[in-house]
Amino acid sequence: MTKSDVFPKVDDKTELEEGTLFAPNFDAHGFLPAIVTSAETGEVLMFAYMNADALALSIKTGEAHYWSRSRNSLWRKGETSGNCQRIVEMRTDCDQDVIWLSVEMTGSGACCHTGRKSCFYRAVPLGADASAAVALVPVDAERQFDPEAVYGHADAAKGTLKSS
Amino acid sequence: MTKSDVFPKVDDKTELEEGTLFAPNFDAHGFLPAIVTSAETGEVLMFAYMNADALALSIKTGEAHYWSRSRNSLWRKGETSGNCQRIVEMRTDCDQDVIWLSVEMTGSGACCHTGRKSCFYRAVPLGADASAAVALVPVDAERQFDPEAVYGHADAAKGTLKSS
Repeated sequence: MTKSDVFPKVDDKTELEEGTLFAPNFDAHGFLPAIVTSAETGEVLMFAYMNADALALSIKTGEAHYWSRSRNSLWRKGETSGNCQRIVEMRTDCDQDVIWLSVEMTGSGACCHTGRKSCFYRAVPLGADASAAVALVPVDAERQFDPEAVYGHADAAKGTLKSS
Repeated sequence: MTKSDVFPKVDDKTELEEGTLFAPNFDAHGFLPAIVTSAETGEVLMFAYMNADALALSIKTGEAHYWSRSRNSLWRKGETSGNCQRIVEMRTDCDQDVIWLSVEMTGSGACCHTGRKSCFYRAVPLGADASAAVALVPVDAERQFDPEAVYGHADAAKGTLKSS
């Protein structure tokens, strides 16, 4: 299934930006970036990509689906870890080439494959000159689950298994 | 300036995910996706890309800079519209290939080139079958400024001038 099989294609920018027809503008590879935030806290939980199938399934079921570029496969969030995402609200941006999902997590409530609530568990300090090494600062970095126990092998903890 | 001139490169996934050295993992074109949320409301305001220069300038100055892929140029947010972004917090994700900025808007407070507070001013209804046309629903879609007046030509309103 390609994008043209499922969603309409709109080239006119005024129509894309001011119209009400949903015409997601997939990139040359057939992907859309998807921003995922917590409906409860507003925190950014993760960032992933959708193809047309993942987007259509997400809309129809209200459960977040993505496309894994590394594994080249459709992926229902939580299919391995049990930490699924119920979509509370989906929005698109001005030129319809990005999706924003506001979600409720199920399971342990952890979104990141490393076991944290959010993938964004380290802050980048401001004011530094980037020519010197910049030291990240942990923020809400406690693990909610043990990735090795959940995924059943050490690859998860090592990060070679990105999705959860 | 390329990524290797400014930021360290780390290939080890455990070090990338569990370490404290900031080693942003730019894509093959030298870009990082950047998610921008409002420090006040938590709302997602926009999505853009940074190259190494834009990232280094954002860190050093605390003012959001991006790379415009359409114009092939570095871009300080607000340089035309006056609607700048003061970075309150910057975070990176597990494998350091995405940036999240929490920002305060200056000027009119509008982030989107169409004049809205956020680029995400339309919701995608859930439960529909995507094989039928999906009608977007406006959310907080009031314009905070007139794009034609701000950018001085009609291209802005038509969306051919994406950044602001």
